[in-house]
Amino acid sequence: MINVSVLGASGYGGGELLRLLLFHKKVKVQQVTSRSFAGKRVTVIHPNLRGVTDLHFCTPSELTKCDLLFCALPNGESMHYMDKLMKLSHKIIDTGADFRLKDLHTFESWYGEKHVKSDLLGKFVYGIAELHRTEIKNAKYIACGGCEATVSILSLYPLVKKGLIDLNNIIIDGKMSSSQAGNKPTLSSHHAERSRVVRTYAPLGHRHTAEIEQELSFGNKKAFVSVTATSIEMVRGLLVTIHTKILDGVTEKNIWSAYREIYKNEPFIRIVNETEGIYRYPEPKILEGTNYCDIGFALDSKSKHLVVIGAIDNLGKGTAGQAVQAMNIMCGYPETTGLTFPGLHPV
Amino acid sequence: MINVSVLGASGYGGGELLRLLLFHKKVKVQQVTSRSFAGKRVTVIHPNLRGVTDLHFCTPSELTKCDLLFCALPNGESMHYMDKLMKLSHKIIDTGADFRLKDLHTFESWYGEKHVKSDLLGKFVYGIAELHRTEIKNAKYIACGGCEATVSILSLYPLVKKGLIDLNNIIIDGKMSSSQAGNKPTLSSHHAERSRVVRTYAPLGHRHTAEIEQELSFGNKKAFVSVTATSIEMVRGLLVTIHTKILDGVTEKNIWSAYREIYKNEPFIRIVNETEGIYRYPEPKILEGTNYCDIGFALDSKSKHLVVIGAIDNLGKGTAGQAVQAMNIMCGYPETTGLTFPGLHPV
Amino acid sequence: MINVSVLGASGYGGGELLRLLLFHKKVKVQQVTSRSFAGKRVTVIHPNLRGVTDLHFCTPSELTKCDLLFCALPNGESMHYMDKLMKLSHKIIDTGADFRLKDLHTFESWYGEKHVKSDLLGKFVYGIAELHRTEIKNAKYIACGGCEATVSILSLYPLVKKGLIDLNNIIIDGKMSSSQAGNKPTLSSHHAERSRVVRTYAPLGHRHTAEIEQELSFGNKKAFVSVTATSIEMVRGLLVTIHTKILDGVTEKNIWSAYREIYKNEPFIRIVNETEGIYRYPEPKILEGTNYCDIGFALDSKSKHLVVIGAIDNLGKGTAGQAVQAMNIMCGYPETTGLTFPGLHPV
Amino acid sequence: MINVSVLGASGYGGGELLRLLLFHKKVKVQQVTSRSFAGKRVTVIHPNLRGVTDLHFCTPSELTKCDLLFCALPNGESMHYMDKLMKLSHKIIDTGADFRLKDLHTFESWYGEKHVKSDLLGKFVYGIAELHRTEIKNAKYIACGGCEATVSILSLYPLVKKGLIDLNNIIIDGKMSSSQAGNKPTLSSHHAERSRVVRTYAPLGHRHTAEIEQELSFGNKKAFVSVTATSIEMVRGLLVTIHTKILDGVTEKNIWSAYREIYKNEPFIRIVNETEGIYRYPEPKILEGTNYCDIGFALDSKSKHLVVIGAIDNLGKGTAGQAVQAMNIMCGYPETTGLTFPGLHPV
Repeated sequence: MINVSVLGASGYGGGELLRLLLFHKKVKVQQVTSRSFAGKRVTVIHPNLRGVTDLHFCTPSELTKCDLLFCALPNGESMHYMDKLMKLSHKIIDTGADFRLKDLHTFESWYGEKHVKSDLLGKFVYGIAELHRTEIKNAKYIACGGCEATVSILSLYPLVKKGLIDLNNIIIDGKMSSSQAGNKPTLSSHHAERSRVVRTYAPLGHRHTAEIEQELSFGNKKAFVSVTATSIEMVRGLLVTIHTKILDGVTEKNIWSAYREIYKNEPFIRIVNETEGIYRYPEPKILEGTNYCDIGFALDSKSKHLVVIGAIDNLGKGTAGQAVQAMNIMCGYPETTGLTFPGLHPV
Repeated sequence: MINVSVLGASGYGGGELLRLLLFHKKVKVQQVTSRSFAGKRVTVIHPNLRGVTDLHFCTPSELTKCDLLFCALPNGESMHYMDKLMKLSHKIIDTGADFRLKDLHTFESWYGEKHVKSDLLGKFVYGIAELHRTEIKNAKYIACGGCEATVSILSLYPLVKKGLIDLNNIIIDGKMSSSQAGNKPTLSSHHAERSRVVRTYAPLGHRHTAEIEQELSFGNKKAFVSVTATSIEMVRGLLVTIHTKILDGVTEKNIWSAYREIYKNEPFIRIVNETEGIYRYPEPKILEGTNYCDIGFALDSKSKHLVVIGAIDNLGKGTAGQAVQAMNIMCGYPETTGLTFPGLHPV
Repeated sequence: MINVSVLGASGYGGGELLRLLLFHKKVKVQQVTSRSFAGKRVTVIHPNLRGVTDLHFCTPSELTKCDLLFCALPNGESMHYMDKLMKLSHKIIDTGADFRLKDLHTFESWYGEKHVKSDLLGKFVYGIAELHRTEIKNAKYIACGGCEATVSILSLYPLVKKGLIDLNNIIIDGKMSSSQAGNKPTLSSHHAERSRVVRTYAPLGHRHTAEIEQELSFGNKKAFVSVTATSIEMVRGLLVTIHTKILDGVTEKNIWSAYREIYKNEPFIRIVNETEGIYRYPEPKILEGTNYCDIGFALDSKSKHLVVIGAIDNLGKGTAGQAVQAMNIMCGYPETTGLTFPGLHPV
Repeated sequence: MINVSVLGASGYGGGELLRLLLFHKKVKVQQVTSRSFAGKRVTVIHPNLRGVTDLHFCTPSELTKCDLLFCALPNGESMHYMDKLMKLSHKIIDTGADFRLKDLHTFESWYGEKHVKSDLLGKFVYGIAELHRTEIKNAKYIACGGCEATVSILSLYPLVKKGLIDLNNIIIDGKMSSSQAGNKPTLSSHHAERSRVVRTYAPLGHRHTAEIEQELSFGNKKAFVSVTATSIEMVRGLLVTIHTKILDGVTEKNIWSAYREIYKNEPFIRIVNETEGIYRYPEPKILEGTNYCDIGFALDSKSKHLVVIGAIDNLGKGTAGQAVQAMNIMCGYPETTGLTFPGLHPV
């Protein structure tokens, strides 16, 4: 049993963390912070937790020592507090972007701002368990992957690792939900404007490109990806349609083998390529609230066009679920503890 | 051909007015104002008008004289400018709430603020053509009904006029869309929060109660209504389910006769009570963009419970369509001019 | 640990039962039947259970003895098989309508068909634990309430029990989801037609009226209710807005006391009447997947109009959750076992 | 003034044709057929036309001669009747797939069935006015493009015509609406299943590929395209995100010039690449009911990745609007007649 606190618990990622942690049998939630809502019950903001908890938000300055600290601040904020946070807890899991990139220059060029704690960049382990399980087990500090990066990396990793695809020809066409943009109201998130859109908000140059390239480059084999992001009518969930080319000689069987071999013991990866029913490829709506990443693919052997489809809950495997999975590994708990909700159907 | 201007044209009601007016063959749109967007093309805010108009917003202070002025400001604003506006145009159609209520006390108690131009209250005609056609024809100033008031009044008017229902027993259960709340982003309009809600935002005491009671009271026969408002997943459209009691001796035939007699020549009222197909009662989604008010009903003769169902487009018959219909009457144009769009199916 | 089977497991209620039972620590799911899908994996129909179970559907005739049998057939079917089922299991929980009504005549007049097993009507206990906990504990056969009946009964029960409202003046305005209509495709459930509707499919005479009146009548105090059902854009969830009148002398405090006293120890009832935040009254979307019934109210003391708002997940507390709760009681398990999922936010 | 009839008028394309034709000032709608609904009012199926028309469906065999016949049958049907239809009308506009492809072999391999009227393949002009205006003017028979083909062709045509992109590297990632699948209920179109999906129903091998390649190949410059189709929460509308590579030396200016030059006089093409507002790229929801095709693009000069975004209303420019535009050209009417509805906002 450990005591954990959540910094930035009024956001959507923070709220989802709280939901998972309150039902985690090895964890006691000690404090949850919110600058805007300090003093208020968490259920004012997260009404799904009514009857589950009496917790109130406190201010960040009221945080006391704990066994593990989740940091769920907006991108660009945690680096300003990390020194202090490291004094409060020996283990920190950050769901923001600040410590994901190993390379200072890459961070500064993609995020357009100076990194104030670049000396710590090397101390964080990227939080995707399927790629970094051993490092996470021994880590003190974790930087969870961005939601679109997570699903893209997991969808492509076996193909890249096994050398099956052209690393210069990877296009990620992401279908995005409104919760990815956070909980701050703007005109573009205003219901009458945002509802039922098919809105290309980033045709090129999505920031997660940097993470994906980092995680899919091994030695001198560098991957180059291009990300296109389109918002659709969806509050929660994320699907990527990845268009790539297989290398000469690669067969469909090679692809199957790659996924099966690399993910054969993964509790949260499912290969979804069905021949019956109406849910034949991954779909995000049945993943809401889960920690699954579902992956499917289709190959046109003639043109070598390979379509890979990956789906997650952006707040689940894409944020809070990934963070809890990392915590489980760090703390030696069974990896699926608190993460077994299977999703709903119909929904 | 007349020159018209629209004050407050960046809002949803103003935008819909603009859409109707730009295709109205008797009208030239002269100026459209917006404090926030002055100088910008109207298509930045109303992207459906791309290729249709090159108009730019101007500031309210740049308004010049015109033949007819539409005022589409938020509630509580037009009264502060009405003196000035009356100097710019001899005909004014106000879509806001400021001049709808005849009684100063009623206004001040429902809107909770002082009316700064109460001397003008008597000069405005309430804009629902089906009740006030003759007065509108001779009017200089029109106050259009609120959207929920409009559909409620139209649904009930023949029943009240013919003395068929208990005036002390009228419950209006309104299903509301997000565009009714205007275009200002707030947490409650934030897509991730507003999406798919069934949110009781006003269980009792909706402001439109006052208008409805005003319009449905004749002489010493006063109507008392209770309005419950529930927001649902809908951007545009409004449906009221009205629960009332028929008086002793009233039959279903009496109800049919009342609607048919009173609305027999109305171009924008349709009685929808079908026995086949799947659209048997009024539904707002097929009214988007139209000026129709569809009305249906069902009677339980034994318990005397009468359910009346009314549907409109809140921005159409509920705001801009009603305003254009009033303009047509005031100017002697055929009443349906510019208002013939029939709505889409499927949608 | 008991062995349970589910008859009719390919429907939406059956699928939700399966989801709950597969994670219930006191239960082993033995068999699940489907006439249409016998031989197929359950995950073909319920894709959320991928990786959770390898169960296949069998035919109803393959059912063997079990400790407890859930019957999730369409209305009007279970009565044809009940004799046989009673030989397979000593405990039966039926989620259909066949055995809910105690009175044969009432059944036959509301459902328009002959009851082929009327001798068994008296042997079933109505499954709402909050009203019938003691009987359920000792029961062999349970008939779970209909989803709209359940939320209506729970919302009204304390008011009726304490004699606070006019039993002749109860109007239930239900906002309904598409999963309530089951999984059989029809033109009215076709996405392009059903999407975004506000469709009055039963302005009067909804079948659940009979159950509600049965459960809210005590001795010679008979309740009369009128149900209006409107389908809205929602797959899962149900909200009722109940319009009633308080009796003379009743105060808001009396209402609070009634709810608090009667529901004070209920784990799945929450009174939701908030003064801050945007989720001030019950809302179904945050109840998806849960067994909660949230209840709120607003009173206009002057007109005596009382608005009661109740929300549930129609497949949760409205069907499968209610059934599992009854099972827990019958089997002496803690009542909340397997039912603690709190719902998601945002969603 | 011409007399026109519509064969297959109960479908979604047929219904939209009817809506357009009933308001077209040069057209009288003579007959509309439906095998399933013969004898019934068209408003039973198309409720938006209530009050607009009293037309009833007749059987196909009751069709009499007319000046122009629209054929809106499901794919694979019109070829069986075309001989007869040609005797009824000298001008035929077919919205189905039967006569779109010039090459018999291509048809039979993509549609998997024998073409029973292959001798007529050469007599039909492909109906996209922007590519074939002159031929349409002189044509007797028109085969309108498929909806996804239409938006893809229009988005790519100037780039291909001007030789700016790699013809072997064109990936079309289509976001599809439910009305594209027609009005026949199936499990995959069932609201509880179809709602809010992000469903990859054709990762590769969409049938419209053939049309797109036909229309974008000129002489020995053959285009090869790959189409991926994903259904999203949308009833009406279609957006394609096209991923392609510019050829060496091509600049953003070349792309702008190509679109501007080729589409400069097109009334229904709009280039949408805004630098302010929230609608910066094409979006289908504001195109509902319109005949517009909106096109935008973004270029990464370094990687040569060009993203082209095209949006239409699948039932508008994608079907019925395209057909009416072709009719206007064939009959010498102003090309925009009956097609000026600008779309709604918000919606």
